[in-house]
Amino acid sequence: MNIVLQIAYKGTHYLGFQKTPEGPTIEGSLEEALTKSKISFSALNAASRTDAGVHAKGQVVNFITPSSPYPIEKIPIVLNQSLPSDIRIISAETKDSSFHATLNAKSKEYQYNIRTSKVESPFDRHLSWHYPYSLDLSLIEKAMDHFIGKKNFTSFVNQGSDREGPSISIIESIEFQLEEKMLQFYVKGSHFHYKMVRNIIGTLIYIGRGKIELSKLETIFTSLDRRLAGITAPAHGLVLNRVHY
Amino acid sequence: MNIVLQIAYKGTHYLGFQKTPEGPTIEGSLEEALTKSKISFSALNAASRTDAGVHAKGQVVNFITPSSPYPIEKIPIVLNQSLPSDIRIISAETKDSSFHATLNAKSKEYQYNIRTSKVESPFDRHLSWHYPYSLDLSLIEKAMDHFIGKKNFTSFVNQGSDREGPSISIIESIEFQLEEKMLQFYVKGSHFHYKMVRNIIGTLIYIGRGKIELSKLETIFTSLDRRLAGITAPAHGLVLNRVHY
Repeated sequence: MNIVLQIAYKGTHYLGFQKTPEGPTIEGSLEEALTKSKISFSALNAASRTDAGVHAKGQVVNFITPSSPYPIEKIPIVLNQSLPSDIRIISAETKDSSFHATLNAKSKEYQYNIRTSKVESPFDRHLSWHYPYSLDLSLIEKAMDHFIGKKNFTSFVNQGSDREGPSISIIESIEFQLEEKMLQFYVKGSHFHYKMVRNIIGTLIYIGRGKIELSKLETIFTSLDRRLAGITAPAHGLVLNRVHY
Repeated sequence: MNIVLQIAYKGTHYLGFQKTPEGPTIEGSLEEALTKSKISFSALNAASRTDAGVHAKGQVVNFITPSSPYPIEKIPIVLNQSLPSDIRIISAETKDSSFHATLNAKSKEYQYNIRTSKVESPFDRHLSWHYPYSLDLSLIEKAMDHFIGKKNFTSFVNQGSDREGPSISIIESIEFQLEEKMLQFYVKGSHFHYKMVRNIIGTLIYIGRGKIELSKLETIFTSLDRRLAGITAPAHGLVLNRVHY
């Protein structure tokens, strides 16, 4: 049977989703919990291999198992007993054998949190980028429009992953809200290449801060040169909110 | 000069505001940071001596010092360099010598967070009470009305503090909002006696859950018997939001 899990985690203490011998990972923790719970599995397929420090409210993972020793609705309870409390299984369901959490994802929604107050908050310092500088939000809003649609995002993609060819994606929407000095961006799109959300956010913030001119944005796109865009916003402000299939 | 600090802290790793030799406290950490920063002080007066695990967004503390080695607006920066990152000085100002953060407080606003989803969230588990049971919010709303006004709250006050006489307070308002399975109560009042907010919340939740009948609420008030009211809601859901002078 094909089991699909919805998972939330605070990524602060993990080296990312993907297993590595260098330290704790989300994948490693899930595998350990499955083994402890005597649920056999071959490989875990995740909708997104989130980087070190990145969080998730709605990561999706599937795996094939010959049979489950528990009724499917008990699986979250069983796994949550073995998992550390910063990783929680929200739900479990079965899908037909063709479903693959990585390959079947149609779009993903990310959230990026920026704390703009002068003094950092003790409550969200692991969940937001502290950026206590004045930002021109109307410039940011204008810049956001340039990212919408099917585009070549090569200038906003870091080297170093297993990407091949040009980084084409469809960004469906970018929105933000500002409430009590917390600026939250919501980005929805078809594919997100290596560090792409964080590079888009870093570029928007540089435009809002006046470090990159809005008029240069189209040139940055066409240059296909990562060095012309803004900085990579830090990992700890990023949350994978939802995956659509 | 009389220096007044606005302070935010995540209380998770502290034994409360008040200094004790048994472990780390907010007061102890503030005293250490003041000493390191060579700002002399006699005693710290806090608006509220929050309990172990309780948080603050707007605690107010004052102290008398002969003179400050820094301009007043630099004091937050200086102290924040010495303080652990879960305690942050939001602002510093001087007031005339008669101002006393404890004695001059006119009213306080508390927030209480309850996570009602089946599975706990990895993001707010230190900031909310996980109570995954169905609650009748209309009953809770009706019950809230009974707490408003000048009343004897003895049935909602724990023994064990230095309280004397009946626990009279004026509760100005109680409100709640429910958003994405997070139920947040806001309580504003003149005085909050020992564990009073947490006992009010525990009683409201017991009424919403059907463990205490709404019709018994007036009897609970007049009995002056703590044992008739609901449980003490756990400390980690409580936040001191604001103090009015």
